[in-house]
Amino acid sequence: MSATWGRNFKISIFGESHGTAIGAVIDGLPGGVELDIDNIKMHMKRRAPGKNKLSTPRAEGDEFEILSGYFNGKTTGTPLAVMIRNKDRRSNDYEKTKSMLRPGHADYTGMVRYGGFNDYRGGGHFSGRLTAPVVFAGAIAQQILQGMGISVMAHVKSIGSVKDDDFCFENIDPEIAQGLKAMEIPVLDNAKADLMRQEIIKAKDDLDSVGGVIECAVTGVRAGVGDPFFDSVESNIAHIMFSVPAVKGIEFGAGFDISNMKGSQANDEPYIKDGKILHRKNNNGGIVGGITNGMPIVFKAAIKPTPSIGRPQSSVDIEKMSEVELEIEGRHDPCIVQRAIPVIEAGAAIAALDMIMERGECF
Amino acid sequence: MSATWGRNFKISIFGESHGTAIGAVIDGLPGGVELDIDNIKMHMKRRAPGKNKLSTPRAEGDEFEILSGYFNGKTTGTPLAVMIRNKDRRSNDYEKTKSMLRPGHADYTGMVRYGGFNDYRGGGHFSGRLTAPVVFAGAIAQQILQGMGISVMAHVKSIGSVKDDDFCFENIDPEIAQGLKAMEIPVLDNAKADLMRQEIIKAKDDLDSVGGVIECAVTGVRAGVGDPFFDSVESNIAHIMFSVPAVKGIEFGAGFDISNMKGSQANDEPYIKDGKILHRKNNNGGIVGGITNGMPIVFKAAIKPTPSIGRPQSSVDIEKMSEVELEIEGRHDPCIVQRAIPVIEAGAAIAALDMIMERGECF
Amino acid sequence: MSATWGRNFKISIFGESHGTAIGAVIDGLPGGVELDIDNIKMHMKRRAPGKNKLSTPRAEGDEFEILSGYFNGKTTGTPLAVMIRNKDRRSNDYEKTKSMLRPGHADYTGMVRYGGFNDYRGGGHFSGRLTAPVVFAGAIAQQILQGMGISVMAHVKSIGSVKDDDFCFENIDPEIAQGLKAMEIPVLDNAKADLMRQEIIKAKDDLDSVGGVIECAVTGVRAGVGDPFFDSVESNIAHIMFSVPAVKGIEFGAGFDISNMKGSQANDEPYIKDGKILHRKNNNGGIVGGITNGMPIVFKAAIKPTPSIGRPQSSVDIEKMSEVELEIEGRHDPCIVQRAIPVIEAGAAIAALDMIMERGECF
Amino acid sequence: MSATWGRNFKISIFGESHGTAIGAVIDGLPGGVELDIDNIKMHMKRRAPGKNKLSTPRAEGDEFEILSGYFNGKTTGTPLAVMIRNKDRRSNDYEKTKSMLRPGHADYTGMVRYGGFNDYRGGGHFSGRLTAPVVFAGAIAQQILQGMGISVMAHVKSIGSVKDDDFCFENIDPEIAQGLKAMEIPVLDNAKADLMRQEIIKAKDDLDSVGGVIECAVTGVRAGVGDPFFDSVESNIAHIMFSVPAVKGIEFGAGFDISNMKGSQANDEPYIKDGKILHRKNNNGGIVGGITNGMPIVFKAAIKPTPSIGRPQSSVDIEKMSEVELEIEGRHDPCIVQRAIPVIEAGAAIAALDMIMERGECF
Repeated sequence: MSATWGRNFKISIFGESHGTAIGAVIDGLPGGVELDIDNIKMHMKRRAPGKNKLSTPRAEGDEFEILSGYFNGKTTGTPLAVMIRNKDRRSNDYEKTKSMLRPGHADYTGMVRYGGFNDYRGGGHFSGRLTAPVVFAGAIAQQILQGMGISVMAHVKSIGSVKDDDFCFENIDPEIAQGLKAMEIPVLDNAKADLMRQEIIKAKDDLDSVGGVIECAVTGVRAGVGDPFFDSVESNIAHIMFSVPAVKGIEFGAGFDISNMKGSQANDEPYIKDGKILHRKNNNGGIVGGITNGMPIVFKAAIKPTPSIGRPQSSVDIEKMSEVELEIEGRHDPCIVQRAIPVIEAGAAIAALDMIMERGECF
Repeated sequence: MSATWGRNFKISIFGESHGTAIGAVIDGLPGGVELDIDNIKMHMKRRAPGKNKLSTPRAEGDEFEILSGYFNGKTTGTPLAVMIRNKDRRSNDYEKTKSMLRPGHADYTGMVRYGGFNDYRGGGHFSGRLTAPVVFAGAIAQQILQGMGISVMAHVKSIGSVKDDDFCFENIDPEIAQGLKAMEIPVLDNAKADLMRQEIIKAKDDLDSVGGVIECAVTGVRAGVGDPFFDSVESNIAHIMFSVPAVKGIEFGAGFDISNMKGSQANDEPYIKDGKILHRKNNNGGIVGGITNGMPIVFKAAIKPTPSIGRPQSSVDIEKMSEVELEIEGRHDPCIVQRAIPVIEAGAAIAALDMIMERGECF
Repeated sequence: MSATWGRNFKISIFGESHGTAIGAVIDGLPGGVELDIDNIKMHMKRRAPGKNKLSTPRAEGDEFEILSGYFNGKTTGTPLAVMIRNKDRRSNDYEKTKSMLRPGHADYTGMVRYGGFNDYRGGGHFSGRLTAPVVFAGAIAQQILQGMGISVMAHVKSIGSVKDDDFCFENIDPEIAQGLKAMEIPVLDNAKADLMRQEIIKAKDDLDSVGGVIECAVTGVRAGVGDPFFDSVESNIAHIMFSVPAVKGIEFGAGFDISNMKGSQANDEPYIKDGKILHRKNNNGGIVGGITNGMPIVFKAAIKPTPSIGRPQSSVDIEKMSEVELEIEGRHDPCIVQRAIPVIEAGAAIAALDMIMERGECF
Repeated sequence: MSATWGRNFKISIFGESHGTAIGAVIDGLPGGVELDIDNIKMHMKRRAPGKNKLSTPRAEGDEFEILSGYFNGKTTGTPLAVMIRNKDRRSNDYEKTKSMLRPGHADYTGMVRYGGFNDYRGGGHFSGRLTAPVVFAGAIAQQILQGMGISVMAHVKSIGSVKDDDFCFENIDPEIAQGLKAMEIPVLDNAKADLMRQEIIKAKDDLDSVGGVIECAVTGVRAGVGDPFFDSVESNIAHIMFSVPAVKGIEFGAGFDISNMKGSQANDEPYIKDGKILHRKNNNGGIVGGITNGMPIVFKAAIKPTPSIGRPQSSVDIEKMSEVELEIEGRHDPCIVQRAIPVIEAGAAIAALDMIMERGECF
């Protein structure tokens, strides 16, 4: 099953890049949640294409229509369905190359998986466009989480070789979160945004593309959320993150670096402050034994460079079963890292809310 | 829900480190599978403690008793339940320190999650002992996969600062897999095993512990297995891997390194060989768009150093709500990386089989 | 979770009676299934209101728009979303009585369940209108089943005191199935249709309503489908049937009558015909031990009379918390049994296909 | 998947009638529940065989061993595993008839479903013995429900042609529930117990068997539990009930009789008492729109006569593929209705608790 996720905050997505519409059904929302539609639009806009010269010129406003589950400005508690019609559709761009396997894309795997019947136009169901309904659901999740004092924030940790600072006790902070959401390339060290922009432009000029790393933090989640075998907080977050196209790695807290630490360095010692138990470090990213310890949940996701590049690549024409040299025309992003930020935030918010609701403490 | 995993090859585990028994119920096994019990014992033995001075001296033979689902030497197709009685139980070791929160352990998170009622002895349900039934299930999964020409193999990629080679086209090979399974510290470059052993002994002598990275490969899986949103192959493998205690990161193919590549480097170009479609590189670790492309599935998992160390650590006595200096006595591993290898293999085998069965091609 | 059903042929429904739209997302469809749109429309028309004086005059054509998962006349294998816009909406009909609890309706339970935020207009999410997307999905399921030689057929077993014949070896037959689908009131004994019609008209003239029983058969399912504890064929069919509004009972084969038989009468003896194992009777309705035995699956569902009646009823105004006498105006069906027939068929088809796909033999 | 049930109170069962052991893993139990072991034994004893001449003489004490999830007399919150070893095993009874298909039993369907590899001895996994772990889990569920003021009670509504009274406002009452649990044949009208006993003895003397109907009530469940499409309270209760061997029908409230009522009779009018909303009737069995309305949940289940009878039956030898006359020797029940009572109660308790936990109000 591909399209449904979650136990408590359940989301089913549908659609293809150049089909009639994309959308989602969200099941498990409590009734009476007042939705801030402008806030949802803000999140959608951050992901939408055509904003600037860093992204594809495809013009999609991603205007959504809520079909159900929303009455008198509030959620009803019954499934909320949302639809986004595809407008800037250019099917013909894809006809002549439909049998060419674009390297790094799901053309071949999708063809095998669906017996060659899936919609190949612009990646069809595999398109990054399918992340729009996820961002919509994530915006609602973040509104609900906010009401519990929980914030989700992400920044570009790196694009190519340009690295931003890490989240740390000093800079994980809802104030900063608001600032990040307003940036074209959200970073903690403002100086890095320009360098990253140059890295992207350079890749574009080289008819190439570039990847990066996103760091995300969820603050305010109480201790005691999650499970050991087989539904750890890491398991659930990783599960949804690896559904986001182009994500190839995830690490929590110190992540891969922890493997080169000694136990005496790696262990986060607890201490007492104002009668509450806190931890002096956060190498475990807020999760121990699969369960939250009250520290911020922190993880990094590796994003691969956009597979669509302008320069010629060797490939296969699967109809002719012959090798070909492929030049991908049409519109594509030289870098999707900055556009993936709201998607990663959405995934983290959806996963966090789903797990918090598990113990029914939510409403 | 913590204890159940899988859609088709479903496993429920139970038990505590010093309780009566640990075990699992495996549901979804086809009928008529002849089980190689000696092979299962071999897998169990690789994980079992007390083998050598690199691991805890706790003496557990991990002898299992199959309670159901097994008749005349073959699986029946109905649930197969297995039980492993805990023998070398030393409850008293834990009484005097039961209110001390061991840094890096799930003492605090488990206490909050279960309201203080969970069995604290030796980590209880959070103990690495719970991986024994997973290895049992994984051994059965590997026997079934073998019948489909699918092999699962893993090696220690690093312990502390000592690094082994990477899996590559040359050394991913069922022959090598057999050899790895026989090694105390499975590595591709034999010279590294000794250096790693020294690293472990040194940590032990320092009353400290050390972590590492495990690399795992699954070969022979046909193209077309898996799904995009929300059940990618990466999602399912990561989900089960992050249930394994001490895993803090996972990456597929080039993983985090791919974020620093250009698209032209990262893309795995397809080509034709003997009328079949192969790929020249495997930066995507055998998975594109969440679906297998026929290349070996390759991933790395980061293992944190054993939290239990001999040297004094600052901690909290949660009953007295006072800070204390804690010295952990009793028996523990200076390094669990080598013991985690069969667990990672088991998880990969269980996840792979579960996904292959999804399309029902299996039996 | 209310809105999602199924493991393999997964359906999520959404919508409210007088909201923007109702619809469904169908996940798990194989790629390449050519859809007979006219046949789907035929099924939708059978359920649609406003057909005749036996049903509500509400004029809804139930015209559907497929939003995704359908490309070049075939399914893509990715989620198929369908939307039906509500046209004949009369919200104001409901404003003045919105705080009146209509006896037999879900007004009170829905209000408690959703904290009073659910859409009350015309029953909102509880409306029989929500069965339209189920009929849509069922029509597709029946098209796929047909390709496997499996037919689904239902008739009105009784309306009020008028009883039709039972399905038996002689009259369970795809030919008859076609005939039944064409009848306004599908019956095996044609003479009964008129008597049932009179029963309905009489109830309508009395400002009252009438219920009945539907019998459904699924033929051509091979032996060996289903499971014992906890997913018997009866369990899965009953689960979806009891989601259909107004269903209050279900029985398989001889059903409640079998409780008054002796074992020697009740047992269906197997025998051999043309080298195949058949059964001389079908008291078990084609299911033994939760698993199909190759005989037709036969069940009956009890449908309660439409709760909406014209005559005054004692009720409660939940805002004023006072007892009131309620006269329900607006449009309603004096009997929904005949309109429920395509819904019961749809549910049976969806459940059957889902279970058949479980063993992956399907595609 | 056969062996796992539930979303919140999750149970996985395993075992075969003459295998090593049967048992269950219960996942989702809260920590800190003090178990009344004697009460559990009482429930187990009610189901156990060999009690009297109304049931099989097979001597199984059904002594259980808790393997995990239970510490210092309380649940830990982690999975609770229980095992019951099979003692009175007589495999040889079944060798000579193993290829004979016993009419009414799952011999044929099980053989097809599991490819002939399932354990055929005494029905194997299909045996009524598998209800023992369900009764164990149900006893725990009832203890938890009791703490919420919820009672589960059942009586024999009929055996053969002898009918007991119905549950009604006057006799649905926890006091009566205690009395019923103590009876060999639990009835509301004591005079009926003897007549039922005679009916059973007569069937036994005729080398035949007899079935019946069980009525069950769950009192004290608040309004607002359950969902419309697709997880109605009826759906969930029916799902688990139809997993109980020999159940062939289920109806809620007036059930099939409601189909012959007028709307004006069938509707349960609400009224106000002490500022609370009650209903004057309970034709809907406490469930409207799939959701509880605060009235007692009431349902009836039809139990077929024991398929195992002493008199000769025509059958098939599936190895020889020849028709045979079969005389079933060995030990069997002339009637299982009274032994099924604690199983139906257990199923109702498990389903009720699972649904109540859905909204997380439970702990």
